[in-house]
Amino acid sequence: MEDITVKKTRSKKAAWDVIPSSLFAKQTHNPIRKIVDGMKLTPNPEKEMIALSIGDPTVFGNLLPAQAVNEAVIESIRSEKCNGYAPSTGKKPIRHGDVIFASGCSGALDLSIMALANPGQNILVPRPGFSLYKTLADSLSIVVKHYDLLPERIWEADLDHLESLIDDNTAAIIVNNPSNPCGSVYSKNHIQGILDIANRYKVPIIADEIYAYFVFPGQEFVSMASQTKDVPILSCGGLTKRYLVPGWRMGWITIHDRHDAFEKQVRPGLTSLSQRILGPNTLVQGALPKILELTPQEFFDSTIEIVKRNADISYEAMSSIPGLNPVMPTGAMYMMVGIDMEKFQAFKDDVQFTERLVTEQSVFCLPASCFQYPNFFRIVLTVPQEKLQEACERINEFCSKYYGKKTNIYDNGVMT
Amino acid sequence: MEDITVKKTRSKKAAWDVIPSSLFAKQTHNPIRKIVDGMKLTPNPEKEMIALSIGDPTVFGNLLPAQAVNEAVIESIRSEKCNGYAPSTGKKPIRHGDVIFASGCSGALDLSIMALANPGQNILVPRPGFSLYKTLADSLSIVVKHYDLLPERIWEADLDHLESLIDDNTAAIIVNNPSNPCGSVYSKNHIQGILDIANRYKVPIIADEIYAYFVFPGQEFVSMASQTKDVPILSCGGLTKRYLVPGWRMGWITIHDRHDAFEKQVRPGLTSLSQRILGPNTLVQGALPKILELTPQEFFDSTIEIVKRNADISYEAMSSIPGLNPVMPTGAMYMMVGIDMEKFQAFKDDVQFTERLVTEQSVFCLPASCFQYPNFFRIVLTVPQEKLQEACERINEFCSKYYGKKTNIYDNGVMT
Repeated sequence: MEDITVKKTRSKKAAWDVIPSSLFAKQTHNPIRKIVDGMKLTPNPEKEMIALSIGDPTVFGNLLPAQAVNEAVIESIRSEKCNGYAPSTGKKPIRHGDVIFASGCSGALDLSIMALANPGQNILVPRPGFSLYKTLADSLSIVVKHYDLLPERIWEADLDHLESLIDDNTAAIIVNNPSNPCGSVYSKNHIQGILDIANRYKVPIIADEIYAYFVFPGQEFVSMASQTKDVPILSCGGLTKRYLVPGWRMGWITIHDRHDAFEKQVRPGLTSLSQRILGPNTLVQGALPKILELTPQEFFDSTIEIVKRNADISYEAMSSIPGLNPVMPTGAMYMMVGIDMEKFQAFKDDVQFTERLVTEQSVFCLPASCFQYPNFFRIVLTVPQEKLQEACERINEFCSKYYGKKTNIYDNGVMT
Repeated sequence: MEDITVKKTRSKKAAWDVIPSSLFAKQTHNPIRKIVDGMKLTPNPEKEMIALSIGDPTVFGNLLPAQAVNEAVIESIRSEKCNGYAPSTGKKPIRHGDVIFASGCSGALDLSIMALANPGQNILVPRPGFSLYKTLADSLSIVVKHYDLLPERIWEADLDHLESLIDDNTAAIIVNNPSNPCGSVYSKNHIQGILDIANRYKVPIIADEIYAYFVFPGQEFVSMASQTKDVPILSCGGLTKRYLVPGWRMGWITIHDRHDAFEKQVRPGLTSLSQRILGPNTLVQGALPKILELTPQEFFDSTIEIVKRNADISYEAMSSIPGLNPVMPTGAMYMMVGIDMEKFQAFKDDVQFTERLVTEQSVFCLPASCFQYPNFFRIVLTVPQEKLQEACERINEFCSKYYGKKTNIYDNGVMT
């Protein structure tokens, strides 16, 4: 904004009562942190802690990036040609007009939401869904409306519900495929169903495709953009998950414009916005062509094999536990498990259930309230197999103990 | 913001006329790009181009990071322990409660401004000054008021002017020391003068200290925070300039709270805000302790020696050119040169002057209009010495040709 020429001096103050009110910060909430920080997470000292909660495939050390990827970055360093500022939208030769680089896929989502939505407008996001959408939107005074995903249809979107939420202020629909936290992979047919609605109401799509190609054998990843010549799409991706390097913060937006809807404002807007922070680390940018070219297919296959085996193991285990209803994933690295709260009246909700599971069994599953979807929990499938098996056994023991109990253990004084 | 439960469906549209208006993007301007993109920069084909315009010490390849720094990052890679997500505020053991990591110093400034100022409030920024302050503020609907720096006092702030700008809506004062574009280094006394005003009106300070310790022999870098027990300060820094790795995007905020002014809102606010994007690349974060510990003092000394020699050379050369008035820097890596426009009536302003210098002499100096300070230009002092000398000779030739000419060459048809 321009200088204000009218001067209005403030009086000298006696104390530091001019405390900044941090409106942007106040509006920035992390629902996961809010819920998790409110939980009493004291593991049973007699059992080793197993965290099935962290969506970071690297934490257990069992999944490492391809050697070619490491070598490519080392080559960037040794070349001494990747230390300078990159163009804010990305270093050539990787960059072309339709790709904007960002600091991780979070950065790509942030730029996309800023470029498409104004304060007071709304965006549609999936429920259950990745909480960052709401965190970013909140901080920008953009309204979030949740469209339901249906567990009985392996987490396809409820298209009628989605359509009913669209109004004159709807700036974009966020579609996350494959999905965190659901582990679902959408069919061509379902993607077409979403695109039809977007096209009918002329709402652009932000496709969160950070788990692109991260699908189980027999499944197919279908990008949103490949299925439409009409709906303009910003596709957000990155190295994070598939290349097992989330900390490297290498993300991007691919612009799929249609009918020149993005030409006049969104494309230059993305360029302007990307100049605020100046993109991802240049060592990784410089290495990107080699990373994309040299990572062997067997690397991806091997990761997926591990995740799929863990999915099978935990699905089988959870299915046999009375009161739990797992939904078998088809991709990504998560599984959602429903809790039949009627059978677990010992707990008020998924938060109490998972908290107590830590207290007694030292197993932490993320309560799906973190994804605006109570009475489920999410487990991560990148854990070493023996830990996962051990965790499943403990969950079984826990559920057997409480199945059918009628009294809330928090209410009756059992808990202190 | 919360879900809106009142549904208001929009009608199906026949065409993609729902073009996003990108308010955030529209508000995000880069003054440098705006001016430079409007210039006709066609070098003289008979002379090799010399760009004295780019504030990136790595572009000429004469300044390389310390080997210990490269090795530290390679060790991060080989350890395979730095690939996962870091806490959003930074990896331990580097992080402690008073340091927040960010994606470069730009990211640190962005977080600091968001944490301290609300839309409609104002921040005071130096003129001439780094244009990113305004870019960031504009995009957040925060008002920018410029306080003057005085070339005759080697770019000290005009304290009376600064004080006169403070009003009830002033959320912070940004102080950049050592300065881009000025190359100035403030004395203790001057810093005290600024702090006194901040204390009197209870306005917190954002200290842009990305050039900390980047001062010429005999000069002393004095941090703002070291000089006050009263004024709360967010100090922004990073590896960027002094370690010669701007592309690595490793920045940080050091929180210097006083009188608990930041305790209730700003500190938690910074933590919340840092969760939006999740911090800088973890390979560099992991290497940071070694980078800070093992970079030898001779490395810094050698960089400063080169910059200081270039400052001497160009100051001497420019001083002897009639119509130019260089201001000798005492730190950072820039020099500002005044243009006596009375003597160069061949040009309307610094933009025409520097544009024509490219056309005829293939030397590009950044017009200081980019820093809200017309009739100066900025040169970068990290250029190889022989290039700088050649550039000075060409500038001399150019100025000799036009000194005293009365007719604007753009008006009278000489230019096409």
